[in-house]
Amino acid sequence: MSGSTYGKVFKITTWGESHGDGVGVVVEGCPAGLPLKESDIQKDLDRRRTGQSKVTTTRKEGDKIIIMSGVFKGKTTGTPISMRVDNKDADSSKYELIKHLYRPGHADYTYDMKFGFRDYRGGGRSSARETVGRVAAGAIAKKLLARDKITVTGFTRQIGHYSATTVNFKEIEKNIVRCPDAKTAEKMVDAIMQARKNGDSLGGVVEVIARGVPAGLGEPVFDRLDADLAKAVMSIPAVKGMEIGAGFQTATMTGSECNDVLVMKNKKVTTQTNNAGGILGGISNGMDIVVKLVVKPTSSINKAQETITQKGKKAEIRVEGRHDPCVAPRAVPIAEAMVALTLIDHLLRNKTSQLT
Amino acid sequence: MSGSTYGKVFKITTWGESHGDGVGVVVEGCPAGLPLKESDIQKDLDRRRTGQSKVTTTRKEGDKIIIMSGVFKGKTTGTPISMRVDNKDADSSKYELIKHLYRPGHADYTYDMKFGFRDYRGGGRSSARETVGRVAAGAIAKKLLARDKITVTGFTRQIGHYSATTVNFKEIEKNIVRCPDAKTAEKMVDAIMQARKNGDSLGGVVEVIARGVPAGLGEPVFDRLDADLAKAVMSIPAVKGMEIGAGFQTATMTGSECNDVLVMKNKKVTTQTNNAGGILGGISNGMDIVVKLVVKPTSSINKAQETITQKGKKAEIRVEGRHDPCVAPRAVPIAEAMVALTLIDHLLRNKTSQLT
Amino acid sequence: MSGSTYGKVFKITTWGESHGDGVGVVVEGCPAGLPLKESDIQKDLDRRRTGQSKVTTTRKEGDKIIIMSGVFKGKTTGTPISMRVDNKDADSSKYELIKHLYRPGHADYTYDMKFGFRDYRGGGRSSARETVGRVAAGAIAKKLLARDKITVTGFTRQIGHYSATTVNFKEIEKNIVRCPDAKTAEKMVDAIMQARKNGDSLGGVVEVIARGVPAGLGEPVFDRLDADLAKAVMSIPAVKGMEIGAGFQTATMTGSECNDVLVMKNKKVTTQTNNAGGILGGISNGMDIVVKLVVKPTSSINKAQETITQKGKKAEIRVEGRHDPCVAPRAVPIAEAMVALTLIDHLLRNKTSQLT
Amino acid sequence: MSGSTYGKVFKITTWGESHGDGVGVVVEGCPAGLPLKESDIQKDLDRRRTGQSKVTTTRKEGDKIIIMSGVFKGKTTGTPISMRVDNKDADSSKYELIKHLYRPGHADYTYDMKFGFRDYRGGGRSSARETVGRVAAGAIAKKLLARDKITVTGFTRQIGHYSATTVNFKEIEKNIVRCPDAKTAEKMVDAIMQARKNGDSLGGVVEVIARGVPAGLGEPVFDRLDADLAKAVMSIPAVKGMEIGAGFQTATMTGSECNDVLVMKNKKVTTQTNNAGGILGGISNGMDIVVKLVVKPTSSINKAQETITQKGKKAEIRVEGRHDPCVAPRAVPIAEAMVALTLIDHLLRNKTSQLT
Repeated sequence: MSGSTYGKVFKITTWGESHGDGVGVVVEGCPAGLPLKESDIQKDLDRRRTGQSKVTTTRKEGDKIIIMSGVFKGKTTGTPISMRVDNKDADSSKYELIKHLYRPGHADYTYDMKFGFRDYRGGGRSSARETVGRVAAGAIAKKLLARDKITVTGFTRQIGHYSATTVNFKEIEKNIVRCPDAKTAEKMVDAIMQARKNGDSLGGVVEVIARGVPAGLGEPVFDRLDADLAKAVMSIPAVKGMEIGAGFQTATMTGSECNDVLVMKNKKVTTQTNNAGGILGGISNGMDIVVKLVVKPTSSINKAQETITQKGKKAEIRVEGRHDPCVAPRAVPIAEAMVALTLIDHLLRNKTSQLT
Repeated sequence: MSGSTYGKVFKITTWGESHGDGVGVVVEGCPAGLPLKESDIQKDLDRRRTGQSKVTTTRKEGDKIIIMSGVFKGKTTGTPISMRVDNKDADSSKYELIKHLYRPGHADYTYDMKFGFRDYRGGGRSSARETVGRVAAGAIAKKLLARDKITVTGFTRQIGHYSATTVNFKEIEKNIVRCPDAKTAEKMVDAIMQARKNGDSLGGVVEVIARGVPAGLGEPVFDRLDADLAKAVMSIPAVKGMEIGAGFQTATMTGSECNDVLVMKNKKVTTQTNNAGGILGGISNGMDIVVKLVVKPTSSINKAQETITQKGKKAEIRVEGRHDPCVAPRAVPIAEAMVALTLIDHLLRNKTSQLT
Repeated sequence: MSGSTYGKVFKITTWGESHGDGVGVVVEGCPAGLPLKESDIQKDLDRRRTGQSKVTTTRKEGDKIIIMSGVFKGKTTGTPISMRVDNKDADSSKYELIKHLYRPGHADYTYDMKFGFRDYRGGGRSSARETVGRVAAGAIAKKLLARDKITVTGFTRQIGHYSATTVNFKEIEKNIVRCPDAKTAEKMVDAIMQARKNGDSLGGVVEVIARGVPAGLGEPVFDRLDADLAKAVMSIPAVKGMEIGAGFQTATMTGSECNDVLVMKNKKVTTQTNNAGGILGGISNGMDIVVKLVVKPTSSINKAQETITQKGKKAEIRVEGRHDPCVAPRAVPIAEAMVALTLIDHLLRNKTSQLT
Repeated sequence: MSGSTYGKVFKITTWGESHGDGVGVVVEGCPAGLPLKESDIQKDLDRRRTGQSKVTTTRKEGDKIIIMSGVFKGKTTGTPISMRVDNKDADSSKYELIKHLYRPGHADYTYDMKFGFRDYRGGGRSSARETVGRVAAGAIAKKLLARDKITVTGFTRQIGHYSATTVNFKEIEKNIVRCPDAKTAEKMVDAIMQARKNGDSLGGVVEVIARGVPAGLGEPVFDRLDADLAKAVMSIPAVKGMEIGAGFQTATMTGSECNDVLVMKNKKVTTQTNNAGGILGGISNGMDIVVKLVVKPTSSINKAQETITQKGKKAEIRVEGRHDPCVAPRAVPIAEAMVALTLIDHLLRNKTSQLT
């Protein structure tokens, strides 16, 4: 039973493989009447695409979006919005050489176990290329959220041992690692270049902050806003953990330290601290939503690794493709998209919480 | 649009409030023919219930399970299994005093914002009492998993600054904090007793390990096994973060350190390390599934805290109820249940992945 | 994969067997703030229950509803409303005699094929007793609809060869067959009594009319309002067909006869005729919604019938229980409930169709 | 909340408008390993397409299917199968003339009410052109069903006042109205040609018979096989009613006439008659599944009709486009598709009914 659909009211279904004809998404549940054109979407795809800087893979995909349905005279019609991006620069030849090997850290073995065989070209469906559809749909979600003055901003908090110590939103898109702290950004770039030189890769932490989210979003007891955000970001390739607000730090806090004190500020209910990360009891409280996710170091490395063949024979592998030495910078727009998709879904779901 | 349902094939819907008539669950999708009796379920409820030791709240709920449907002559019939536990020791009187105050760290304000008003007695629907239904359903899930030799074991990995350094499964249920390391357990108990004395509370980390899970479970790209586990455990009250395998540590690893090398062992594909926590590309690889979740310190503390009233007036609150000074020990069976529910759902979903 | 849930936003899950502990329903998605008490629901259950007149079965079930959750201080809280009715007058003894026989027209054989065995007492889950939960949930749906001035009225259009030729809504609940035409009602009663005397049973047609439904409900292309109504009423036991508006008569109409001409009436868009039954392109057009459904004659008859045993041996059966000789009159509140549930679900779903 | 998805395990999402870029479908849940090529699908699309005979519209759409994902080396991979057909012969010019008029019998007014505006070109999303995606997905469903020796055959049972009196499966595709009775077929063709001459249109009845369906499919109590079939066929444009087996005739039968007697035949449980249409208690019993559906006469007719403008002014309309004078013949492959999609979904859902 397939799992390529996300969301309940604002619902997306992605399709496509790394080296197939293309990738795409069908967006259902977008309200009618939203002005929408391809350039609204292209913008975010350009932040996600390969080959955008020296810290990303050199595979060059133009990633030109085509809206195939659901928009008429520049506005959404309320019917499914189908979008696609054709694959262009897919070079499958090198995958022929390793099609009988299981790459460590990749989904090769697990796809074989699940489906009996796999599209081995570029990871097939398990490739991060699938996230093109998410980012396209996320761009629509952001446009809808913007109408309610909700913004979703992602950045690279940490790469390897370097963590941003200040957060300046204006800095984020000025550097190629998308770090909100210019000084740390430089160190991150150096660390990545060094890792590439070593034929190795680095992990990192991406953070997403949503501002302007009204109190009341989230559906107890399972579709809590934090639970759905968790699913959303954990479904991104390479993500191994996530936290909301103070997250794992709360393990060592006391209740009196951790509880955020409620106060009135400009006639608005607010909290003095935000350890909760904007969510209490699974429902937004009007403060910033703060989500962090960890991305593991890229599994494809240009170093010899021990592994086995499909038949269980010992083998050595060196993955020579064009890969990102650290996926964090390109994971930023993907994480933003997943957070935005979750928020718009809950914003729409919340329309029926109370009698009006 | 309500969110009290979890799972797609093995599906549960919980209902009930802390101080209402009772709490319960309807389990759909349990295959016909499973031997099932109330004592199978009572066992886990007893591990979850209040008043079981000096580190838990003193509220005494017998939590006697009643199976109302779906079982005939000792076997499941394939139709919905409806179960309930009547509430007995609910004392709502003290909540009358604070019904106009927003307790810091609780869902009081957010429920009001979402629904316009709230059942203020004991947290109403936001109370952890709701998890009775989850644990009951989880007991059925575990019984089904056991048929495939899959076991799900939870324990307290950390409380405050004390972390288990060894994991001895046999030790877990021997101490009242459910720590797999007897020595650390003692320190944890002391720390909790000290926190209670201070009128304060502690956070912690719960870990769940699933053994015997076959390779192939998980549905790309959104219903990845790790994404669904994330949603599952993040939907537990008080949980603020989660990770799979090496989790947040992977941020500081290199690819060559993080990748788990595949090897044959007893003619079985296995990995030398398990940084992946048993999941690659969102699909299980046959290794142990390792999930960690952090629970924040209990929000109800017996210390004066600043807050506001429903009308936005400044106020002071001291929550005098009977509360767990640390929820980690009682969260263990709940976390087990959520992991078991996720696994059985995916085990059943996987029946249609390949032609047979 | 179980199928005991109906609806997407206003969602119900029913549980329970004919001769088990009881039957019930969990209602999710009811907006917070609706005044609700047990007597609101009891009213419709009394119209559905057994033993209410000489044309129904003599089994006496009080069918007393208990609301277990989701209501606080007389209002819905927005959380799941769990309700149950305990079984009282279940007499399982006579089913022991026929437990190895397959009753013609019943689900005995099909349940055995699906689940491997079955609860043979009174039809178990396949019994119409399951519809108690639907009627209870439907009463809440009606109460919500009434706030928007939408009413849902069912009646018996036909029993055997007798059809109502006039429709007087005030007459419906005045006769025991719920026929809106007093004269035909008498003939229907006679026909039923005669059938019972013969140890036989009769079929009939139930009609439901929803008035005040606004234009715009229904979600193309699969969740059309008519498609969902079809599913709703076809899921009632014994129903073998359904139609909307002119239904099967349209087969012999021409387009110029069938098309309903649009006109303005009291400044409102309306149609001169209503062959469409209030639905065009799967979306309501503001006219009355008109649904008809056919119920087959009761399968349990007090006549010898040929059949087979579970082992495939030829046998004779005579079903001696207490059965309705015609289910149409009691199907009326059930059909109303299913139509009401479908309408409220679509009314809530429609809240997000357009930007506001 | 959109409704363009059908099915739970074998799930399809269609997209596209009559005069947009194209139409398509994403199929989720198709098991891996099914041989699949475009010609498997083209075959059924050719039976559905316009311009295939003198009784259909003259719009010429080649309807060439493109499989964009989910197939590798000629086999399904278990991941979403995305397919599209580009629109070619769309002539929108004549719709400009009537864009402010509401065509009687069409969804113009209802779409405006729902979404605030509409794509008026060729009916936009409400056009039967949307069913291209259903037929494409249905072709895959049929291929899967064929592996279990299940066949799904549709035909025209009735057009206007002419009904097939014999059913010869081999005759169906030999005549342009798809009638299984050659003599009646001729009369149907004449009737249609006459209606076209009159600038009018005819209704009809389509029947679908599924043979080889095993006993046990269908999920009580809402996802009954008959309830899901009802939804499936009622979601086809222009369908106003449906019945299973003896359907509306059961209203005038007695129980002793209607009950199908169970007998053993060739060591198989079977019934002497099939009034049930292969379904009891919502679950298949191994007999032929027999579904009938009525299609109203085409709403677009070349005759002057009274109507109103968007602003509520009285107007006259004559729809001059290229339309089918009777949609029944082209509805046959669409109805087959919807039945096949329902059956494969339930066949897959049924894999988890019992412990194995």
